[in-house]
Amino acid sequence: MELKHLFDWHLEDETTWEEQLIRTRHHYRNPQHLPKSDILRSLGLLFFNSSLRTRTSMEVAAARLGAQTSVIIPGSGVWGMEWKDGGRMDGQTVEHIREAIGVLSRYYDALGIRLFATGTDYTLDQNETRFKKIIESASVPIINLESALYHPCQALADAATISEYFKDQIKGRRFVLSWAWHPHALPHAVPNSALLMATRLGMKVTLARPKGFELDPAIMKLANQNVSKYDCSLIEIDDQDAACEGADIIYAKAWGSQLRYDDVEGEKMLRDQYKNWQIRERHLGHAAFMHCLPVRRGVIVEDAVLDGPQAIHLLQAEFRLHAQIAILERAWNLI
Amino acid sequence: MELKHLFDWHLEDETTWEEQLIRTRHHYRNPQHLPKSDILRSLGLLFFNSSLRTRTSMEVAAARLGAQTSVIIPGSGVWGMEWKDGGRMDGQTVEHIREAIGVLSRYYDALGIRLFATGTDYTLDQNETRFKKIIESASVPIINLESALYHPCQALADAATISEYFKDQIKGRRFVLSWAWHPHALPHAVPNSALLMATRLGMKVTLARPKGFELDPAIMKLANQNVSKYDCSLIEIDDQDAACEGADIIYAKAWGSQLRYDDVEGEKMLRDQYKNWQIRERHLGHAAFMHCLPVRRGVIVEDAVLDGPQAIHLLQAEFRLHAQIAILERAWNLI
Amino acid sequence: MELKHLFDWHLEDETTWEEQLIRTRHHYRNPQHLPKSDILRSLGLLFFNSSLRTRTSMEVAAARLGAQTSVIIPGSGVWGMEWKDGGRMDGQTVEHIREAIGVLSRYYDALGIRLFATGTDYTLDQNETRFKKIIESASVPIINLESALYHPCQALADAATISEYFKDQIKGRRFVLSWAWHPHALPHAVPNSALLMATRLGMKVTLARPKGFELDPAIMKLANQNVSKYDCSLIEIDDQDAACEGADIIYAKAWGSQLRYDDVEGEKMLRDQYKNWQIRERHLGHAAFMHCLPVRRGVIVEDAVLDGPQAIHLLQAEFRLHAQIAILERAWNLI
Repeated sequence: MELKHLFDWHLEDETTWEEQLIRTRHHYRNPQHLPKSDILRSLGLLFFNSSLRTRTSMEVAAARLGAQTSVIIPGSGVWGMEWKDGGRMDGQTVEHIREAIGVLSRYYDALGIRLFATGTDYTLDQNETRFKKIIESASVPIINLESALYHPCQALADAATISEYFKDQIKGRRFVLSWAWHPHALPHAVPNSALLMATRLGMKVTLARPKGFELDPAIMKLANQNVSKYDCSLIEIDDQDAACEGADIIYAKAWGSQLRYDDVEGEKMLRDQYKNWQIRERHLGHAAFMHCLPVRRGVIVEDAVLDGPQAIHLLQAEFRLHAQIAILERAWNLI
Repeated sequence: MELKHLFDWHLEDETTWEEQLIRTRHHYRNPQHLPKSDILRSLGLLFFNSSLRTRTSMEVAAARLGAQTSVIIPGSGVWGMEWKDGGRMDGQTVEHIREAIGVLSRYYDALGIRLFATGTDYTLDQNETRFKKIIESASVPIINLESALYHPCQALADAATISEYFKDQIKGRRFVLSWAWHPHALPHAVPNSALLMATRLGMKVTLARPKGFELDPAIMKLANQNVSKYDCSLIEIDDQDAACEGADIIYAKAWGSQLRYDDVEGEKMLRDQYKNWQIRERHLGHAAFMHCLPVRRGVIVEDAVLDGPQAIHLLQAEFRLHAQIAILERAWNLI
Repeated sequence: MELKHLFDWHLEDETTWEEQLIRTRHHYRNPQHLPKSDILRSLGLLFFNSSLRTRTSMEVAAARLGAQTSVIIPGSGVWGMEWKDGGRMDGQTVEHIREAIGVLSRYYDALGIRLFATGTDYTLDQNETRFKKIIESASVPIINLESALYHPCQALADAATISEYFKDQIKGRRFVLSWAWHPHALPHAVPNSALLMATRLGMKVTLARPKGFELDPAIMKLANQNVSKYDCSLIEIDDQDAACEGADIIYAKAWGSQLRYDDVEGEKMLRDQYKNWQIRERHLGHAAFMHCLPVRRGVIVEDAVLDGPQAIHLLQAEFRLHAQIAILERAWNLI
C-alpha cells in the first residue's frame, strides 16, 4: 500500500486538488449523503497545540463516515513525548515520538497531527523536521492539522468557501490577505496556506503587511509559481488602507516577524509599532470578511465587521467539516 | 426551524413537562428500545465546570440514540474563552464565546452547556447573562447542563425517580429539601430546581435552612406559584430536626448564603455556625434519602445513611441517563 | 448475573486463559470479523494514571465491538476522588470512589480502571485495597487496566505475541525478564504479570535483577507454582550479561526496589548503582526484544535494539488491541 500522507497536499497536482474541492462542496450541499462502509475505521487525533474547530470538525467528519475517533493530547493524561533522536531519555519526557506514532499506527487507520512551529528554531520549522519524523515513523496516512508551514485543511475549506460564495465566478476577484496586529508572534502556517490557495484559485492577490512581516521567501516563490501557472497576480504592499480598497475578499490574519527566531524583544518592538493594523468597517466596501478563527475581537477586527452581514467566517468554519470529510475519503479510498 | 432551547424547561407548560416525565420513565423501563435513525447526529458538550454524571450520562444517552458526542473543556486543549462584549481582546482569552458557539452550531445538532454561577456578580448570575449570550449566538438547540439558576436535567431525573419510587402515589407526600453544611459556598441551581420540581409534583414541601440561607426571592415566588397551581404546600423552617420528622423524602443539598456576593468572609463565618447541619441516621424515619451528587461523606450526610437501604441517590443518578435521552429526543424531534 | 471482574484473570483456570489466548490471536488474524450486536454497549474507562496504549487500544477495541467509550480522568474536568472510608470529607476531594463507581455502574456495561501502586503504602498496594474497594462498589464487570500488582491486559497481549512470534513452538524457549535502570522507582505490576505469563507459557525463565530488586515473595511463590504446574523453570540471577546469553526473548523492564516504601533516599542510592543495566545490541544474540512501552531510549535500551529487526515491541503493542477485544467479549458474553 502506498501511503497517502496528506501533509501539504494543497501543493499537489491540479487534478487531485480540484477533486478535493468538488467533494468538499458536494458534502456541503449534501451533508448526509455519505458513502456507507462495513468496515469500522478509527481515526487518532494527536494535538500538540490547542484546537476548537479542527478537533471538533474532525470528530464530526469521522463520525459521518462511520469512523471512531480518539483525541490524544500529550501531557494531558498521556505521557509527555520526546523528539530528539539518539539522546539519553533520563529527563521529563517518557515516550519517544517514534514509538508513539509506531504504536498508534497499529490501532488507527489514519492519524491527524497538529504541531505548530516552535518559533524558536528556524531550521527545524522551515524543514518541518518534526512533522517529517512523524511521517517516517507512521505506517498509516498522516493528516496535517496545522504544521510549522502549512494548514492544508484550512486552505481546502477556504477555497471551497470562496468558490461557493462567488458561485464559481472567482477569476479576477481581488483577494486581500491582510496582516493584523496581535499581542503574540503567531506562526505562519495559515497565511502561507491562504496565499498559496488564493493564487491557485487564480485571484488577483494583494498581500498587505508592514515592513518586517514578509512571509518566507520559499513560500513567496511557490506563490509566484502559482501566479504564472494559474494566470493571476500577486502584489505586496505595506499600506492596509490602500490594499483593502476595492477588495472582493479581505482575509485578516496575524503573524510574527521572522525576527522572532533570534530577537524576541526586537520582534515585539517592531510588531507593536503596528497596533493600528486592524480591519475596520471603513475597510470593507463590498468585500466579504474572512478569518480562520479564533479571532481576537477589537484587536484583529472591529466587532461591527464580525457581526455585520459581510462576515463569512462562520461559513468558512463550517467548510472545515466538509473539507475534512473529503480528506478522510481520500485517505481511506472511499471514493 | 424554531429552536428549542432546553434552558429552563422545568418551568415550561404542563403538557411538555408531563410528556418528558413519561418518556424518561419509559426509557428507564425499556432501556434499549429506542427510536432508530438513519441520520447521524452529533452532540457537542461544553463544560465550563467539572462533571462526572452529567458528562458521562449525556455521552451514553447520545450513543443510545445513535449520536456522536464531543466533550469540549475550554482551557484544556481548547482555547480560553472571552465573555465580555465590545472589549479589546488583548489579554489571556483567545476566542470570544460568540464565535465559539457560532462555529459549534455549524458542526453539532445540539449543544449541552454547563456554566455555574460566578458567585461574585449577582446581577450577571440572576439574569443568566452568560447563558443567554450563548443562546443568542447559537443556531442549534442549547441544553442546560446546569446554569447559574437551574439544573433542569437534574430536576427531570429527580421527578422521575420520585414518581417511580412512590409508584405514582406522590400527592401529599412530605418532601424535605434540607440545607447542609459544606466547606464551600456552593451555587443555588440544584436547590432552586429541586424546590420547583417538588412543588410541581404536588408534594407537601418543607425547605429547611438556617437563617441567612434563604433561596432567592424570585425562585420562592415561582415555587409559591406552583403551590397555588398544583395544590400543594410549602413551608420554610430553620430547624433541621423538626423539618425531617415524618418526611417521605429527605433531599440534602449544600448552598452558600447570598452574602457571598459581597461579603465572602461574613458568608463563611455565618455558614460555619451551622456545621452541625448534616443528615444523620436518626433523621431518616421512613424517608428515602436523595442527593444530586457528588456528596461529601461525613459532611453533608452520615455514611450510615448513604450505605443504608433508604438511600436512593444511585437510582436518582441513573435517572439522569433516562431523563437526558428524553431531552435529546425532544431537541431532535425524535418522538 | 454473576459479575466477571477481570481483575487478575491471568491467574485464572487454564481453560479460560487458553480460550482468551485463542480469541486474541483470532482477532489479530481476522481484525474485522467481529460479532455483531443489536444492543448498544457502553464502556467507561477510569484513568487515575497516564496512558497512551491502554486508553487508545481500548477505545478502538470497544468500537470494533460496536460499543461507545467514555474516558474519565479524575481531577481533569472530573471531580477529585476520595478513597478513605469513614472519614469527614471536608478537604480537597469532592466525591467518594464508592459513589463514583456506583453511579458509573448505572451508565456503563463495564468499567476499565487504571490505578497504579501508591509506592508509599506497602500493605495497601500488596492487598490491592483500593482496587478491591472499586470492585465492591461496582455492579458491572471491572476490567483491570493496571493495578498495584497486575497488568493482565499486557500479560494476555504478551502471551499472544510470543505464541504468534514463535508459531506455537514456545515450550523450552529461554525467556529473560531483565531489570533496567530508570530515573524513577516504577511499580511492579508489569514485571509481576510478565513473570507469571512466561512461566505459564512453559518457558525457561530467567529473572535478571540486581540484588535489592527482587519481586515480591508472594509473586515469586505464584511463579514457582507455575513452574511445577507447567513443567518449566525459573532462575534468578544478578548478572544481566550472563542472563541474556542464548536468550530467545529479552523482555526489559524497570522497577523500583521495595525499599521505596520506607526509604526513598536509600532506594534511589541503591538503584543509581546500576545505571549500566541497559539492554544493548551486544546482549541480543538471536533474541527478540520486548518491552511494554513507554520506553526511555538510551536508558532502558539502546536505540540500535529498538530500531533493529529483532525488536517486536510494536507487534506487542498491537496485540493489546486484540487482547482487549477478547477481554470485552468475555466481559459481555459475546462468544
